[in-house]
Amino acid sequence: MKLRHIISARQFDKKTLEQIFNLTDKIKSQKYNNNHLSGKIMATLFYEPSTRTRLSFESAMLRLGGKVITTENAAEFSSAAKGETLEDTIRVVNSYCDVIVIRHFNEGASEVASRYSKVPVINAGDGKGEHPTQAILDLYTIFSRFNRADFTIAMVGDLKNGRTIHSLCPLLAHYPKVKIIFISPKALAAPKSLKEYLKQRRVHFEETENFKKVELADVIYQTRIQKERFKNTRDYQKYFGKYIIDGSILKYLRSKAVIMHPLPRVNEITQEVDSDRRAIYFEEAANGLYTRMAILAYLFDKS
Amino acid sequence: MKLRHIISARQFDKKTLEQIFNLTDKIKSQKYNNNHLSGKIMATLFYEPSTRTRLSFESAMLRLGGKVITTENAAEFSSAAKGETLEDTIRVVNSYCDVIVIRHFNEGASEVASRYSKVPVINAGDGKGEHPTQAILDLYTIFSRFNRADFTIAMVGDLKNGRTIHSLCPLLAHYPKVKIIFISPKALAAPKSLKEYLKQRRVHFEETENFKKVELADVIYQTRIQKERFKNTRDYQKYFGKYIIDGSILKYLRSKAVIMHPLPRVNEITQEVDSDRRAIYFEEAANGLYTRMAILAYLFDKS
Amino acid sequence: MKLRHIISARQFDKKTLEQIFNLTDKIKSQKYNNNHLSGKIMATLFYEPSTRTRLSFESAMLRLGGKVITTENAAEFSSAAKGETLEDTIRVVNSYCDVIVIRHFNEGASEVASRYSKVPVINAGDGKGEHPTQAILDLYTIFSRFNRADFTIAMVGDLKNGRTIHSLCPLLAHYPKVKIIFISPKALAAPKSLKEYLKQRRVHFEETENFKKVELADVIYQTRIQKERFKNTRDYQKYFGKYIIDGSILKYLRSKAVIMHPLPRVNEITQEVDSDRRAIYFEEAANGLYTRMAILAYLFDKS
Repeated sequence: MKLRHIISARQFDKKTLEQIFNLTDKIKSQKYNNNHLSGKIMATLFYEPSTRTRLSFESAMLRLGGKVITTENAAEFSSAAKGETLEDTIRVVNSYCDVIVIRHFNEGASEVASRYSKVPVINAGDGKGEHPTQAILDLYTIFSRFNRADFTIAMVGDLKNGRTIHSLCPLLAHYPKVKIIFISPKALAAPKSLKEYLKQRRVHFEETENFKKVELADVIYQTRIQKERFKNTRDYQKYFGKYIIDGSILKYLRSKAVIMHPLPRVNEITQEVDSDRRAIYFEEAANGLYTRMAILAYLFDKS
Repeated sequence: MKLRHIISARQFDKKTLEQIFNLTDKIKSQKYNNNHLSGKIMATLFYEPSTRTRLSFESAMLRLGGKVITTENAAEFSSAAKGETLEDTIRVVNSYCDVIVIRHFNEGASEVASRYSKVPVINAGDGKGEHPTQAILDLYTIFSRFNRADFTIAMVGDLKNGRTIHSLCPLLAHYPKVKIIFISPKALAAPKSLKEYLKQRRVHFEETENFKKVELADVIYQTRIQKERFKNTRDYQKYFGKYIIDGSILKYLRSKAVIMHPLPRVNEITQEVDSDRRAIYFEEAANGLYTRMAILAYLFDKS
Repeated sequence: MKLRHIISARQFDKKTLEQIFNLTDKIKSQKYNNNHLSGKIMATLFYEPSTRTRLSFESAMLRLGGKVITTENAAEFSSAAKGETLEDTIRVVNSYCDVIVIRHFNEGASEVASRYSKVPVINAGDGKGEHPTQAILDLYTIFSRFNRADFTIAMVGDLKNGRTIHSLCPLLAHYPKVKIIFISPKALAAPKSLKEYLKQRRVHFEETENFKKVELADVIYQTRIQKERFKNTRDYQKYFGKYIIDGSILKYLRSKAVIMHPLPRVNEITQEVDSDRRAIYFEEAANGLYTRMAILAYLFDKS
């Protein structure tokens, strides 16, 4: 059955993922009709700052022949500032467009939006919740390098609040040979509910505070540790300093490993790493355009 | 004679209204060429927050084949922040586009803009002044339910500062059988000049503080009472509480009545009302797209 | 050799200028294919407020058949707010577009951007640095009135911080009969490096504090004196008052002189001047659209 809204990575089965990845390949090799969404309008409602997600979605829509209406900062410049509920905003905006892409500071906001919308809603990040299209571009990028059935991925940083982690894990769960190493301070460990989910699906995973475990990984998925999550600066400094990928760490990594990051990074990956051939985070960001084109094409496809 | 700019609802005669409503019907039933404004560019200059007005205008332009350049918050991010006058902004921007849609916090701003612009200017709300395209979509929505010649409309809330009220009344004045009931606290009564205007045109209207009078209306047009208009919170609480449409009020309303609201609402209509078949405010908002397409098509039509 | 990025006016040789001016003429007389950039996407990254530059670039792109993705206030609403470097932002955004137009509060920012971008970068103003496309539209406007080889231009106001001045002078340096009169308070004189540059190229220029020297000029290029550049308000008042173009100054000006200003103006040109036929600053702003269309067409031209 086709997905109507894209709210959570848990909605995707293996077959749908394959469909989207095939579509992405086709788009990347320019074998796709670039006027497919002619006459369609996307509304991007962003209640939080973003560059890459909003601009890549908008570029994706334009490159498929569609059009865009946008609110760069819905929290301040939309009717939300006058006290309008998200439900009301959606019930209005869905009359002016054919698909809504929403980023919101509240977990669950896009799910609420989808319940009130007559047009498809895509979750472009909902607080500490999920970011499913990021997970799709991440997995697409991994698959461009590794056998789909067999790799070890180390997820590093703030696994508690990192929505890209929360979305990537459920996608990986479809591939039984994948092994996950969660590397984080205990205070920022992956949520219990996520671990339960992985257990039920018999995914191999382990948890550690030891950053050196990255040496066992084929994929190092680094994330930002946000200062504001800590009660005091000392704790932040303590943890933050432990999980930086720099020149000295590069020596530990496998020669065929890849270093990924959903971006933006602050300094959890130092600039000296950029020139290492294992650093593929900008390629990852570039894949965001193609996978999002595929996701949009998929949503509007009648089949 | 054709309108060049759309600044005030008072510019519209009955014939022009009919023309725009016919065009709206044609657009709604998809009998209209959706590439009519190909090659035209709309500039939306918004000096105040807005979702529905800006996005519906932009969607309207795109759906007619036109293009859009936009400033979401002109007050902060345009040259206005450097002290440029509105006159100068208009004299520059009018060189980059074929129509300007402006929302401004000052009453009269769009009239000033129109005096300096070589391209048509559309008033999308000017402070406490007017919001003529909202009035057109409101009347179109009413006419979709009631005989054009004969209905009673109750206007409720802040009639003093409510620009949608100030624009709707002059349109209603073209229809001699329409009766208006103004329901508001005395401190927020409709402006004297508006009442003079209605008297001159022999429009039936009455004023009351009694909310129960909504039971006599075919159309209940609810508006927001803005807290900031009151000197003290107690006065606000007192008035605000008196004019809420909730489940208990629904019982008083006529079975064929309709409940409208220019939106956004805060809580002057409770959510339990949404599922009542008389609540048509989201349909009203949806008509904003079609009537604005008609208004744009009208402005660019050579006839 | 073709320019890849447009960062500084110093990149332009006389031949390239002529090419762009010819293209502008062709565009202005509607002899240019208005679908030339079909399929191309421009990203406008604005870290500082702007109306005319951003909107004219976007309009230019749309009028050539291209499309636009935009950040109206990149400083607050993009990942820059999360601490991302400009380098990273560029390395991501360049994957989503075919050309980047950047305005930034830091001098040199667009040069940095160009080093990290796979697509052309256009400097739309970098702090106190340069604004090369403004200089091109300024020179195009001057040439529409004066013999290309022979005129005197008075540059008035804040020549130290005025980036439009810093970009216009190097373009003028290609025309040996042009004479420049710098008129400013000593504290706001043109930068030494700029004067060195002009000397090397044997450009005739003089410096004065005497505003009355405008009577010798064919072109009066007025700029804004920004209050924040002064340590105390009294100094500001003192200098500011000396360099206002008003009705009394008009009498001193040559009958065929033209008054220009990059805009926005605050009150360094009074409104009474607007109706004088020598005031051409709004025509100048209008030329921004055509010259920017030409610049874009030039950048994407394969020749």
